[in-house]
Amino acid sequence: MSETAQNPLRRILLTIEYDGTNYSGWQRQYNGLAVQQVLEEALTKACGESITVTGASRTDAGVHALGQACHFDTRSRIPPEKYPFVLNTMLPRDIRVHTGREVPAEFHARFMTGKKTYTYRIVNSRHGSGIRRNTHVHVPVPLDTAPMLRAAQTLLGTHDFAAFQASGGTAKTTVRTMHSVNLTRQGDEIVFTIEGDAFLYNMVRIIAGTLIEIGHRRRGEDAFLQAFDTLDRLALGVTAPPHGLELTKVHYTDKALAMPEAIRWHED
Amino acid sequence: MSETAQNPLRRILLTIEYDGTNYSGWQRQYNGLAVQQVLEEALTKACGESITVTGASRTDAGVHALGQACHFDTRSRIPPEKYPFVLNTMLPRDIRVHTGREVPAEFHARFMTGKKTYTYRIVNSRHGSGIRRNTHVHVPVPLDTAPMLRAAQTLLGTHDFAAFQASGGTAKTTVRTMHSVNLTRQGDEIVFTIEGDAFLYNMVRIIAGTLIEIGHRRRGEDAFLQAFDTLDRLALGVTAPPHGLELTKVHYTDKALAMPEAIRWHED
Repeated sequence: MSETAQNPLRRILLTIEYDGTNYSGWQRQYNGLAVQQVLEEALTKACGESITVTGASRTDAGVHALGQACHFDTRSRIPPEKYPFVLNTMLPRDIRVHTGREVPAEFHARFMTGKKTYTYRIVNSRHGSGIRRNTHVHVPVPLDTAPMLRAAQTLLGTHDFAAFQASGGTAKTTVRTMHSVNLTRQGDEIVFTIEGDAFLYNMVRIIAGTLIEIGHRRRGEDAFLQAFDTLDRLALGVTAPPHGLELTKVHYTDKALAMPEAIRWHED
Repeated sequence: MSETAQNPLRRILLTIEYDGTNYSGWQRQYNGLAVQQVLEEALTKACGESITVTGASRTDAGVHALGQACHFDTRSRIPPEKYPFVLNTMLPRDIRVHTGREVPAEFHARFMTGKKTYTYRIVNSRHGSGIRRNTHVHVPVPLDTAPMLRAAQTLLGTHDFAAFQASGGTAKTTVRTMHSVNLTRQGDEIVFTIEGDAFLYNMVRIIAGTLIEIGHRRRGEDAFLQAFDTLDRLALGVTAPPHGLELTKVHYTDKALAMPEAIRWHED
């Protein structure tokens, strides 16, 4: 029996940044290297026992994360706030762990998410960008951001986003609430951010692709309203490429994160 | 004799962006692949004759350029403004040509530069950034940007920057004029920009390294003033790593770029 087997089991929540360029996405795949796999291998070494992590969001290949979250269970005695220091020495430079904390045994990184924030980045110049080639989508035709912003604002509130998902989506309900959106231009860079309670598969990339067509005046700025009415995927634009997308933040409520006082006492 | 040999010789100026991560710098080296070499190979194919380019600045390995400039001579009939389109289909995605124009035969990309603008980027957070690992230097200790900005402002004007160069610098005079500086913080990102008439070898990286020590309160904010007085390299901080540095813009005067009217007429 290993030395750690006598320790109490703890559930740990990590926040993780990664450049998705060189990965097949968050989740383990048949082909390619997944971020989850790299993280699990580092955790297994660090904790001295086999570790499986559960992520908040299954980002696609090429999608980045500034604030992915995941949880795992361990009997390791590593103090939770030390995980970033321990893991960052073992992880490749394109994956960084920013925080670690203990959470209740009932906590679940995927099912207990509050809001999520996504960012989609565009380089809007004739010849694109060498430096930002992996974090921004290149749109060579001039985009008018005024109708893009007005259209983005029609996403706010609670709607049936059934039209806003890739075929094969398995969500039980397609009603979602969007809390805030923003779209800014600085020089050749257009940045779109959206915060919502939950998102359907490929939803942000479908929104980004539609916004690009609206900015190009190839689609009206009422496209999202039409899609809410008709629930028709064809009311929307093409799915924008993955590498412009970043999972920026996963929010959890204080209640979801709160450790019961009694358990704290017991563990001391 | 090749078909192009009968055409008039033209001098062409290109502006070029590159992510320096995967290159041994701008200039051809014994080891590693230089940006210059990649560009010359594409130009040689495009123009159908052997092309050598002269860059405005010899950026070091790992240093980026948003606005490098270079000139070359060719008898090719490719319209100058078409070079970005022709070259960007042949170049790797981390090198982009943004503009092409004809310049006078006397024009020289290196000796006729007006001002140059450099940017140095820092991620100031405990665990650094996975996404920005190649464009920002990671400084894990908290930096106070107020003294950094005050110190940066003492660089303005004309000074003897003899202390601000790596050993082996070959400049005839070390007097330089700085026209503008800026230093801003947004979240964990600190961005320093400096515009001057010319720069000594490693000068911006020595300034950045000194600013980091000033922000860490390990060096006084009068460090640059002391270095002007003593001309002593030891008055300044360590040379900051190359990957935080970007050659942002090379300025040329309208006069340097102006084509003589008579020649224009003749070419029409």
